Amino acid sequence: MVTSPLVGDVFGAVVRDALAVSRGVGARPLAGGRLPRPVIEIVERDDGLISAVMADGYLAEPDQWPAHDRRALDLVRGRVLDIGVGAGRAALALQERGLRVTGLDISAGAIAVSRARGVRDLAHASVEQHAAAGRRYDTFLLLGNNLGLLQGRERAPEFLAALARMASPGARVVAQGTDPYGTTDPVQVRYHARNREHGRLGGQLRLRLRYRELATDWFDYLVCSVDELSELLSGTGWDLADVDDADAPYYLATLVRAGGRRV
Amino acid sequence: MVTSPLVGDVFGAVVRDALAVSRGVGARPLAGGRLPRPVIEIVERDDGLISAVMADGYLAEPDQWPAHDRRALDLVRGRVLDIGVGAGRAALALQERGLRVTGLDISAGAIAVSRARGVRDLAHASVEQHAAAGRRYDTFLLLGNNLGLLQGRERAPEFLAALARMASPGARVVAQGTDPYGTTDPVQVRYHARNREHGRLGGQLRLRLRYRELATDWFDYLVCSVDELSELLSGTGWDLADVDDADAPYYLATLVRAGGRRV
Repeated sequence: MVTSPLVGDVFGAVVRDALAVSRGVGARPLAGGRLPRPVIEIVERDDGLISAVMADGYLAEPDQWPAHDRRALDLVRGRVLDIGVGAGRAALALQERGLRVTGLDISAGAIAVSRARGVRDLAHASVEQHAAAGRRYDTFLLLGNNLGLLQGRERAPEFLAALARMASPGARVVAQGTDPYGTTDPVQVRYHARNREHGRLGGQLRLRLRYRELATDWFDYLVCSVDELSELLSGTGWDLADVDDADAPYYLATLVRAGGRRV
Repeated sequence: MVTSPLVGDVFGAVVRDALAVSRGVGARPLAGGRLPRPVIEIVERDDGLISAVMADGYLAEPDQWPAHDRRALDLVRGRVLDIGVGAGRAALALQERGLRVTGLDISAGAIAVSRARGVRDLAHASVEQHAAAGRRYDTFLLLGNNLGLLQGRERAPEFLAALARMASPGARVVAQGTDPYGTTDPVQVRYHARNREHGRLGGQLRLRLRYRELATDWFDYLVCSVDELSELLSGTGWDLADVDDADAPYYLATLVRAGGRRV
């Protein structure tokens, strides 16, 4: 009899273990109870595809980051909300630059790890919950493919409205995305077609994360082209002010409040 | 709607991609269609546990192996059947030592990769199928935890009988196992208890492998103590002649035909 995994804070467990491995202290995965094992996050997609992500990247220093992530830091200014703070890699880098940054995450484990690593201001909440707290920000940062939090046509307007409620005058969103359509991999091409047949965006992934005995519920995560992003912004009060696609298929999108073009 | 993965030759796909990555040639996993990604084999257990194995170990040279795997080569003599040849790492090392070695695997992809890497004598078959071919061997080698192929109380006698049918006089089995019971990890302790409640050996894992869009069927794979191994051998015509547990919890078991003690 095959038992389903427990639903829990997968990402939190991943970054907790990654931190324990990096420090050599605390409960962490060991082969044969002795040899350190890498921490690997597993991602299942609703078409049966499975993939694995080495977790050490969540703790990486800026000199190990992809170049576009480093360039994203230069687009940030003022009070920053780092959405999906994860293990705090971007928040720590911004703190070191002297910026005021709040790390936001729905993962309790991510908040704990970010705190342990020295991120000073953290909030364990969704964007809607945090918007209710009445704080204002000049930059909303979405690194690590977190443009994906727009999820799709239904969720994007709600998500962007929550950011608008927290936006100072002249606020911007700096978000990293990936254009999924450059591939000829038949598994990916079939998936994009299947999504469109169901009225979804081609790269509107339906995923769950797994780690050890834990799984998340299934959730949508959007990988979209810049053209698709432009369409999603229509009517949201956010305009696409700039795209840096020097590392295509990865890109950095800068959004500004409609009417403002102050990038 | 969540679709089940396709049933296929997971291990073969893993070692094919690992070979392509190591050679930098051929279809292989790329992040964003550009950056090489490590090949990672995923293992699901029937209690919902999931884990990930870096595939580069399957292609490793002896100087990168665990020490007990290198010591296993010194226990090998005569004509060798390498059971679960995988990507050929042990067969290649034995060929270099001048031994006559046949690589056996039920994975077509493993056979193809072993051939591409230079293993000269290969058979795509189960042990029973290969026993019907009438060939005789002096050593049966089971590296990489492949003592696990004994599966459990039901399968072990059949498996060992197939080896007996292929055994030259004085033949031996050299098999690497792992004692699973040294852990205090509650996930593992619970799993061992659950197995015993169902009349199984504590470390009688029920697994399936996954990689990209593929999964295997569920199968048993045995992780057992030396005491459990001794019990499984009872009445099979094979005796436990030697155990090297210098790298506990890993061990090398040497089995000989009952009555013979020629280690």
